Amino acid sequence: MKLSEVGELSLLKTIRRRFTVKSKDVIVGIGDDTAVIKPSGKNLLATTDMMVEGIHFDLSLITPYQLGFKLVSVNVSDIYAMGGRPQYLLLDIALNKNTEHSFVNRFFDGIRCAIKLYGVSLIGGDISSSRKDIVIAATLIGDAKKYIRRSGAKPGDRIYVTGNLGDSACGLELLKRISKHVPIEKTGGKMQDKKNHESCIMNRASELLTLTSKLSKMELTWNVVHPLLKRHLMPEARKPKNFIRYATSMIDLSDGLFIDLSRLCDESRVGAKIFMEHIPVSSRMRTASSLLGLDAMKLACSGGEDYELLFTAPADRKINAVYIGDIVKSGRKIIDKNGRGKKFSPSGYQHFASSGSAYREPVKL
Amino acid sequence: MKLSEVGELSLLKTIRRRFTVKSKDVIVGIGDDTAVIKPSGKNLLATTDMMVEGIHFDLSLITPYQLGFKLVSVNVSDIYAMGGRPQYLLLDIALNKNTEHSFVNRFFDGIRCAIKLYGVSLIGGDISSSRKDIVIAATLIGDAKKYIRRSGAKPGDRIYVTGNLGDSACGLELLKRISKHVPIEKTGGKMQDKKNHESCIMNRASELLTLTSKLSKMELTWNVVHPLLKRHLMPEARKPKNFIRYATSMIDLSDGLFIDLSRLCDESRVGAKIFMEHIPVSSRMRTASSLLGLDAMKLACSGGEDYELLFTAPADRKINAVYIGDIVKSGRKIIDKNGRGKKFSPSGYQHFASSGSAYREPVKL
Repeated sequence: MKLSEVGELSLLKTIRRRFTVKSKDVIVGIGDDTAVIKPSGKNLLATTDMMVEGIHFDLSLITPYQLGFKLVSVNVSDIYAMGGRPQYLLLDIALNKNTEHSFVNRFFDGIRCAIKLYGVSLIGGDISSSRKDIVIAATLIGDAKKYIRRSGAKPGDRIYVTGNLGDSACGLELLKRISKHVPIEKTGGKMQDKKNHESCIMNRASELLTLTSKLSKMELTWNVVHPLLKRHLMPEARKPKNFIRYATSMIDLSDGLFIDLSRLCDESRVGAKIFMEHIPVSSRMRTASSLLGLDAMKLACSGGEDYELLFTAPADRKINAVYIGDIVKSGRKIIDKNGRGKKFSPSGYQHFASSGSAYREPVKL
Repeated sequence: MKLSEVGELSLLKTIRRRFTVKSKDVIVGIGDDTAVIKPSGKNLLATTDMMVEGIHFDLSLITPYQLGFKLVSVNVSDIYAMGGRPQYLLLDIALNKNTEHSFVNRFFDGIRCAIKLYGVSLIGGDISSSRKDIVIAATLIGDAKKYIRRSGAKPGDRIYVTGNLGDSACGLELLKRISKHVPIEKTGGKMQDKKNHESCIMNRASELLTLTSKLSKMELTWNVVHPLLKRHLMPEARKPKNFIRYATSMIDLSDGLFIDLSRLCDESRVGAKIFMEHIPVSSRMRTASSLLGLDAMKLACSGGEDYELLFTAPADRKINAVYIGDIVKSGRKIIDKNGRGKKFSPSGYQHFASSGSAYREPVKL
């Protein structure tokens, strides 16, 4: 059923029913001119992210369910990167006339799965139309007793990350190569009403795998491929753990290690020295990238959308995360296993950029 | 200069410099993973609105400056409609590769003019790209001691509006007819660096007027046309005045009287009876619509984007606004000058809708 055949009230009622807010501090949720909240925390955090079809996502590679989940995750990741607790979500969605009603349902299934996972309430939003490309945006409000900025790193601090880098970028490469061999029509309509996101990934991607001879030729197994696809399609934001009390600065890795570490250094007015050998790379990413003919270290340093946390802490603190380098006074270097240093510079997603341009995207205000 | 030739840091620095926040309760503004605010009010309000090129705006009719101003106004209107005070703004902007840097500058000029007018601080956002259509979205956070919902209207209450209806819809019709006679290229690049929004409207529209013989044939004068164009291109949100202490329910008129009054009735579970003769229509709108061959009453009842406030209050209160009808137990009627009643139903913007569909847009969550 197309959206043009669904009544506004019916759509609204369904969404309201499915997103009944149980939180005491949400006084007015969906359905009025604004939401009304009574936050208990002292410091309120607010962040927003927009995702545009054809730029940030490709509907032949990601399902509506995964898209909804991911939109929430990327915003939660920003709140976590400030040391905060995510709480209230507002959505903006522009769909085209031919969008299937089931797309909206699956998208909201993904949203619901994510907000349950992160303990967030959907409190408002706006559904409208676009001529062609689907556009989705979310604003997330959270709170924090103590918040951690990008700007607090000091020379002598150590640099840490919370997990493996490059899995997401490798997953995207896998998806692109798989999808070339599977016409969209063959799989597009087959998304079943699976609520569990594990099974959603399985459902779509294993279907793709069966249909693709290329992967089996490359000797890639499902055990290797699945976690990489999952990290790209349905990333889970990393909640900072005990280390938060020692963190002097923090940022989430959305655009790649080099670019995000550069941002942290810019804000803190410091330099950084990282050790190539210390950068955590999963064995499955090594396997897959090697079979795909890609450079694992490049994916780890410049691939985006890992949504791991990058933070700094004084060297004398015991930190439960991966130590990858040190904050120095100035300069940005990556040291290889032979001790040779090379300058690194931001190199991530470049959308507007013609070659040589310094304009990168997205620019976070 | 195209966006592709502008450095990220340079763009970011310009925006940060121009939007330095002076408010004591904004602890971290633009430039980190999230903004950090310390709101003083007890009830926090949050609303969001997205505008898509080709659907919500047409760049041959509206300038980037006006678009920025309008985006803020429509969100402020929602906060005012809850009886709140607008405070913190987050923006999402997706531009295409060929967007001129001057577009971004003028757009932010309009944003700045509006946030100054309303006393709002820009605290964050996200600038990214789209393949073709420009998409802009804003989230506005405000506060309120006492907030007014859509759902509080009681039978016996009177229905009021804060000003003339239909001016905006009539202004849009004028713009459409003028622009047909002026190729976009002729005017698109001529927006000067005028900061004052009055002069912005003058600048563009008077240029159009000079170039158009049709309007003069229709005997329309600038004094008639200008306020109508202004109401459409740069609506100012109506701040509720003294009446707010008596208001039992309130909504802003974004989609037209019939549709928004229906929403208020739905939420309050009541009916309404409005008097055609009481609906305020400006003499200039009567003049213009008559010369354009349009039905003034239809524009007033079904035209969107007036951004006047519609509210209800007990009949025994002295209210400084236009009394247009009464809340009744059930039914929705409009009474003509001869006392004949006709049922009214929502009829406003219908984007997804094929004929007969009940789906309207935007759907506010």
